[in-house]
Amino acid sequence: MCDVCVMNAVKDRMLSRRDLLRGGAAAGVAGAAGLAAVPAVADAHGSVFDMTHTYGPDFPTFFGEPGIALEQAFNFEENGFNLFNLTINEHTGTHIDAPLHFSEDGKSVDEIEVGNLVVPLCVIDIREKADADPDAQVTPDDLAAWIEVNGDIPDRSCVAMLSGWGDKVAEPAYRGADDAGGLHFPGFHPEATAMLLEQTSAAAMAVDTLSLDHGPSQDFATHYAWLPAGRYGIENLAGLEQMPPAGATLIVGAPKHAGGTGGPARILAMA
Amino acid sequence: MCDVCVMNAVKDRMLSRRDLLRGGAAAGVAGAAGLAAVPAVADAHGSVFDMTHTYGPDFPTFFGEPGIALEQAFNFEENGFNLFNLTINEHTGTHIDAPLHFSEDGKSVDEIEVGNLVVPLCVIDIREKADADPDAQVTPDDLAAWIEVNGDIPDRSCVAMLSGWGDKVAEPAYRGADDAGGLHFPGFHPEATAMLLEQTSAAAMAVDTLSLDHGPSQDFATHYAWLPAGRYGIENLAGLEQMPPAGATLIVGAPKHAGGTGGPARILAMA
Repeated sequence: MCDVCVMNAVKDRMLSRRDLLRGGAAAGVAGAAGLAAVPAVADAHGSVFDMTHTYGPDFPTFFGEPGIALEQAFNFEENGFNLFNLTINEHTGTHIDAPLHFSEDGKSVDEIEVGNLVVPLCVIDIREKADADPDAQVTPDDLAAWIEVNGDIPDRSCVAMLSGWGDKVAEPAYRGADDAGGLHFPGFHPEATAMLLEQTSAAAMAVDTLSLDHGPSQDFATHYAWLPAGRYGIENLAGLEQMPPAGATLIVGAPKHAGGTGGPARILAMA
Repeated sequence: MCDVCVMNAVKDRMLSRRDLLRGGAAAGVAGAAGLAAVPAVADAHGSVFDMTHTYGPDFPTFFGEPGIALEQAFNFEENGFNLFNLTINEHTGTHIDAPLHFSEDGKSVDEIEVGNLVVPLCVIDIREKADADPDAQVTPDDLAAWIEVNGDIPDRSCVAMLSGWGDKVAEPAYRGADDAGGLHFPGFHPEATAMLLEQTSAAAMAVDTLSLDHGPSQDFATHYAWLPAGRYGIENLAGLEQMPPAGATLIVGAPKHAGGTGGPARILAMA
């Protein structure tokens, strides 16, 4: 049973931790922005990786305003326990875009099928061209190159853009605002989106940037094609650089508030 | 690799869906409160189950006030997209209690180790005594009886109380408020909590009710023992009646806002 794989992975990870405590240099990966990653170990099973940015009021947002506020309603000293009331813009941090976000009556975040939350992960690495051009996009050629090497995109996959933007999350370059207020970061080209819609049953599209459409987009053509088709999106995904191009499984802890258009999610991967 | 197990499970599930569409009666489980479950199939792998209640302003809370409010900041007709600002009491719906919730300086929800979010699930079934007494508690005897049948509680487990309260989530009986304002629902007895702390490395304790302590508790002795010890809690867990007593794996999509005392989580299981 699959839980055996997972339990073995946990044991392996505990071993890695012990190695780390003994001063072993082989382990230890900790990305930007509080990303906690458990090092992969060379065995037949897998390890669990955290694909989620820690987020707070400083986390970059599309509109540039803080996406979360914490108000302490109870505190340990006076009340004997701590509790915050949170005010959250649904599209903050590592989060989901449900079909309803860009449609009149698409599925809300609580209506996404559970079978579409545990899916094969396909990583499209465009770091080289994104290094040269912050407005770079995933194109049909990028998808074709991935398929050439890895075979067809599996049913219900999450197809994820790895632009390298995760490393910039604490820098102004993450939004890439210019003097005129325009934004500059990579995303999916509408033609690549059309290709995924026509030729695959991918459940989700993910980016390691603020938006499925690249920063300069004025028409949000990728959002308007992808979400009304009943597929969902993930923005600000972390840790993609630790994943293989194919073969990992993404576990999407989408929030489940009734009628939501999306929301901050805890996303893990097994690889 | 473990993702192979998962991908096979997804294939199996798709087969089950096809069977369902063909009118097969074997599949189809949908619990209360929007709980979406994928039927288990008889094979060597596993299926994914949703252990999370859909929640909204009507979802029962410990204090009796709505735990979430949605304010529509943008709407499709006028703005071309939908987006809500959410106001959320951290301890609403299917949610996490981080150590910080009942301690001065314990771990916040974003600091829980990722290795403690994918863990063996041990289900302690007290439905029979909870049927007879809404103030029933998990006792050391209940834990001993589970161990007698299933063996030791595995390292890093989540030990979960199945009281059957999940079926009452839309009824006043879920809070069980009496005329004097007292609450009545099952929880963990402080002696069982002490046993888990002393004899196991369980990472988490879970209940299918509003609180780790049973309703009548005035001293929250289980909260004050468990959370400051660096372990975490899950409240309002759904779907436990579908799980085996031992052998399933719980995947806890805890939220990752910096410094939080807990928060609504998406929780899945593989069994």
